[in-house]
Amino acid sequence: MASRNKIFLGTFVHSKSRTELEYLHDAAMCVDGSSGTIVHIERDFGSDHSPASIERLVSQLGPSWASSSPSESGGGGGGGGDDGNSSHHRDGYDVVATEQGQFFFPGFVDTHIHAAQYPNAGLFGKTTLLDWLEEYTFPLEASLASDLPKAKRVYTTAVRRTLRNGTTTAAYYATIDVAATNLLADVCLSLGQRALVGRVCMDERTVCPAYYRDESAEESLRRTVETVEHCARVDPTGRMVGPILTPRFAPSCSVESMRGLAALQRSRDLPVQTHVSENRGEISLVKKMFAGLEGATLEGDEDGGVSYPGVYDAVGLLTGRTILAHGVYLTEREAALVSARGSKVAHCPCSNSALASGSARVRWLWQHGIDVGLGTDVSGGYSASILEAARQAALVSRVVAVAEAERRAGGEAETSKLTAQEVLYLATRGGAVVVGMEDRLGGFEVGMQWDAQLVGLGMVKEEEEEEEDGEDDDGNCDVFGWESWGERLEKWLYTGDDRNTKMVWVGGRLVHERRVKGRRSGCM
Amino acid sequence: MASRNKIFLGTFVHSKSRTELEYLHDAAMCVDGSSGTIVHIERDFGSDHSPASIERLVSQLGPSWASSSPSESGGGGGGGGDDGNSSHHRDGYDVVATEQGQFFFPGFVDTHIHAAQYPNAGLFGKTTLLDWLEEYTFPLEASLASDLPKAKRVYTTAVRRTLRNGTTTAAYYATIDVAATNLLADVCLSLGQRALVGRVCMDERTVCPAYYRDESAEESLRRTVETVEHCARVDPTGRMVGPILTPRFAPSCSVESMRGLAALQRSRDLPVQTHVSENRGEISLVKKMFAGLEGATLEGDEDGGVSYPGVYDAVGLLTGRTILAHGVYLTEREAALVSARGSKVAHCPCSNSALASGSARVRWLWQHGIDVGLGTDVSGGYSASILEAARQAALVSRVVAVAEAERRAGGEAETSKLTAQEVLYLATRGGAVVVGMEDRLGGFEVGMQWDAQLVGLGMVKEEEEEEEDGEDDDGNCDVFGWESWGERLEKWLYTGDDRNTKMVWVGGRLVHERRVKGRRSGCM
Repeated sequence: MASRNKIFLGTFVHSKSRTELEYLHDAAMCVDGSSGTIVHIERDFGSDHSPASIERLVSQLGPSWASSSPSESGGGGGGGGDDGNSSHHRDGYDVVATEQGQFFFPGFVDTHIHAAQYPNAGLFGKTTLLDWLEEYTFPLEASLASDLPKAKRVYTTAVRRTLRNGTTTAAYYATIDVAATNLLADVCLSLGQRALVGRVCMDERTVCPAYYRDESAEESLRRTVETVEHCARVDPTGRMVGPILTPRFAPSCSVESMRGLAALQRSRDLPVQTHVSENRGEISLVKKMFAGLEGATLEGDEDGGVSYPGVYDAVGLLTGRTILAHGVYLTEREAALVSARGSKVAHCPCSNSALASGSARVRWLWQHGIDVGLGTDVSGGYSASILEAARQAALVSRVVAVAEAERRAGGEAETSKLTAQEVLYLATRGGAVVVGMEDRLGGFEVGMQWDAQLVGLGMVKEEEEEEEDGEDDDGNCDVFGWESWGERLEKWLYTGDDRNTKMVWVGGRLVHERRVKGRRSGCM
Repeated sequence: MASRNKIFLGTFVHSKSRTELEYLHDAAMCVDGSSGTIVHIERDFGSDHSPASIERLVSQLGPSWASSSPSESGGGGGGGGDDGNSSHHRDGYDVVATEQGQFFFPGFVDTHIHAAQYPNAGLFGKTTLLDWLEEYTFPLEASLASDLPKAKRVYTTAVRRTLRNGTTTAAYYATIDVAATNLLADVCLSLGQRALVGRVCMDERTVCPAYYRDESAEESLRRTVETVEHCARVDPTGRMVGPILTPRFAPSCSVESMRGLAALQRSRDLPVQTHVSENRGEISLVKKMFAGLEGATLEGDEDGGVSYPGVYDAVGLLTGRTILAHGVYLTEREAALVSARGSKVAHCPCSNSALASGSARVRWLWQHGIDVGLGTDVSGGYSASILEAARQAALVSRVVAVAEAERRAGGEAETSKLTAQEVLYLATRGGAVVVGMEDRLGGFEVGMQWDAQLVGLGMVKEEEEEEEDGEDDDGNCDVFGWESWGERLEKWLYTGDDRNTKMVWVGGRLVHERRVKGRRSGCM
C-alpha cells in the first residue's frame, strides 16, 4: 500500500483547539510514502515553489527523498497526479500545491455510519426509530446479508460516496452476515478508506425479526470473531481496516451476548460501538426489557428505573473504547457515568432531526467531560457527508439554545450554540478521539497520518461575464474575494459540498480526485 | 421575450394537493412560445415519440404549430437545445423529452430572499437578528447601495445561483438605493427569472444607522415610487418583473412611512412584503416602539400589549397581498388576524435555525387558514436553494413535533411533521399562492406558465466499475433502481442539489442548462 513520498505546499487549515482553527500559509509538509505519516513541517516555507527551494527542503529529509528514479510513478487511487497546476511529479517525490484560495484540511472522521443502509438515505417517511427499524432498515439489511453482489454494489457506492465527501475514516456498521461484513472490510481496503468495520450483533427474539437475527448468543459471538479475524488477515497492521464490536443496541441483544462481547473486548482490547438514548420510546423499552438487571440502575438518577447506559455498564460494555451513538436524552447521572468510563459520543444531528429523535446537547456533553465526534448515521441520517453533519450540528445547537432560552423564559442562551470552528473540530479531531486515533488523525502534526482533503471554493468573477459553457464544479460556495479566511471557512461549512473537495488522501495515498470536463478540477 | 413553441414529453410530477404528488408518465405538454403558457396536455400520449406521433399531437393545436420555418432558432437563455438526446428541434417547435428516471417538476418559488445579502450567505457567527443586522447586514447592503458595479456583480451572481437551483420566481428585497434596486429588476429580466423586486424602506432613526436609511417618510415613499415606475417601464406586461412594497420591518419604519406605503398599496393594488415575529428580542422592541399605536393591540391576546402583526394592521399594511416572513412566534389571536386579512407567510427554516430565531409551526399556520410558502431568506438563511429550504422545513417540523411531545410529557406528536409531499407543495404551489400567482404558477395545468425544471437523479451502475474519468454531475442523490417514484422524490428532496436540476424554463424560455464535460448533462 506504499505510495510515493509527497510534499504539500501552500495553505493548511486545521483545529488548534476546540474553539480555534489554525491557518498556516506558505507552509510545507512532507509525507513519507511508506508510512503515510507527516515527517516534516516547515511553517514558513514561503511562496517560492522553485525546484531549488524544494531541493533545500528535501535536503533535510532522509535518503529515500533523494532518490531520483523517474520510474517510480504516482500513488494509487483516483490518479497519479501527472500534470496540472496543483500537482506535479519530481524525482523521488510528488509535489501538490494549493492554488489561490485553496487549502488543505484534515480528512473527516465519520464516527457512526451504517454502510448497509446507504440505499435508504433520504427514505424515512414519518417514522421514528422503532417503526423505522421495522419498516425500512431490517428488510434492507437482511436483503444485503443474503446477496453478496448487492452488498458489493451498495458498499462500493457508499464508500466512494463518503470518500468524495472527504471522509477519510469511518466507523461502519455492516449487517449480521459474516461474508457481507468481511466484504465491507475488503471494499474499504481496496478503495483506500480507513475504517472500523463491525458485524451487527442482534440475538434478542422479541425485537429482532425472525428473518434477520443471530440465532443465539453463542452464534452471535462466534460470527463476530470470524469478522474480527478476517480484518486481521486482510490488514495485519490494522492501520487501514480494523474490527469493532457492534452490539446493535441494548434492546436487540441478550444480556448473555453483551457479556460475551464485553469479555471479547477485554481479552483483545477491541473498540465497541452501539447506540444509546436516541429516542424516548427506545428508552422506555430498555427500562422495561432490562428491569432487574443488576448494576443497571443509577442511584439518584432523575429518570428513575434502569438506566440505558447503565445497562451497557452492567454488562461491561461501557469502556474507554466504546462509541455511543446519539445520547440525546442522557441524564446528569448518566452523563457522569459515561464520562467516568471514558466512553465517547457520536453526535448524529441529521438523523436525530430526520427521525424526530430530539436534539443532542453537544456543549452539555463537553461540560460533562465527554468526548464527541460527528456521525452521518446513514440512513437514519439522510446524508453521507460529514460536512452536512457539521452544518446540522451547528444549526441544531441553535435549536437547543432557543429551547433553553424559552425554558428560562426570556433572554438568549448563547452557551449552547456551536461555532463553525467547533463543529469543524467535531468533524476532524473530535472524531479522531472518538475512534481512538487522536494520536494519528485529525490534524497536521509531525507523526500524524496524511489523511487530508484539498478544498477549493468558487471564486466569483470580477467582471460580469457570459455564463460559461460548462459548470465550474465549485458548487454553491461563492467567494467574492473580500472575505477573511475565517469567513471562507464558514462559507465552506454552510454552503459547501463534495464539489469543493478536490482531492482526498488517506495515509498519504491519493484516493479521490474530482475530474470535470476532462481537466483536473483541483485547479481553479 | 417570445421563444419557440415547445413540446415536453415523458414524466411530469407536481402537487395535486398539499398532501399528494401527482405522477404523469408518458404524457405530453405543449407550450405556446409567445405567451409561455401550457396550451395543451395529453396525459396518455404514450412512449412513442416518433415524428408521426408528434405530428398527430401538433395537428390538434393552432396554426402557429404548423409552421415549418427552420429559421426559427432556439429560445433564449443558456442554450437553444440544438442537439442531444433530450431536446431536438422540429419545424415550428422544439421537443424536450425526459430520459429514463428524469422528470419535469414545477419551478421553485422563493417567497423571501434578500438579493443584496447574497455575499454573506453562510456568514452569521453567533449573532441573532438584531445584532446580525448591525454587524453583517446593514454594512453590506449600504456598500451595494453606493457601488453599482458591485451591486451588478452581486445581483448577477445571486440570480444565476438561484436559477441554477431551480428558482423560477423570487420575491426579492434589494437595498434602499433606487438605482441598485432598478438594476436588480433589470438583471432578473435579462437572466429570465420571474421576480417581485422591492426597494427596502427604512426611515426610523433609532434602529436604522445614519449611514443607511431613508432620510424621511416622504423620501422613502418618493424613492419607492421611482422603483415601482421603473418596473412598469422595463416590463409593461408585469408578467416577468413587478414591484413589491417593502417596509423592511416595523422597527425600521416610522408609522408615517408605513401609512404612506399602505395608501400606495391601495391606490395601485401592489403586493407588500415585510417581516413579522421572527425573534423574541425583535417582538419586545416592537411592543416598546409602538406602544400606544391605536388599533395595534389585540383584545384577549395571550402575549399582551401591542401585537406585531397588529402594528401592520393598524397602519393598513396587513392585506391580502402581504407576504410576512417568518411568523415564528405568532399567537393564536395574531394568527386569526393574519388569516382574516388573507396575508401570507414566508417560512424560512434555514434562517430561523441559523439565527437561532426559533422554529415556525407550518401545520399550525395551515390550521389557522394561513397560506404558507418557502423562503431562503438569504443571508439570514445560508442557502440560495429552495430545495434546501424544503429539506429544512421537513427537519424543523420534526423538531417542532419533538418539542410538542415533550410538552405533552410523553407520546409522539405526529401532527406537526411535514411530509416530503407537503414541503414540495410549499416549494411550488404554496409559494405561488404566497406571491399571488397561483393561477399562473406552481403546477402543470392548461393556462399556467411553463415555469419548470428538468430533474435527473444519479443512477448507480449495476456492475461494479472503475470510477469514471470525470464526475457524473448527479451529485449525492443515488438511485439504485428498485425505488418507487415516491421514494425517488424523497431521495431528491433529502440528498439532491442543483446538480439534479438539469434545465430550467421560465415562461417557456430556457434560462438555465447544466453543461458538464462539453456534453449536455440533461442526458443521463
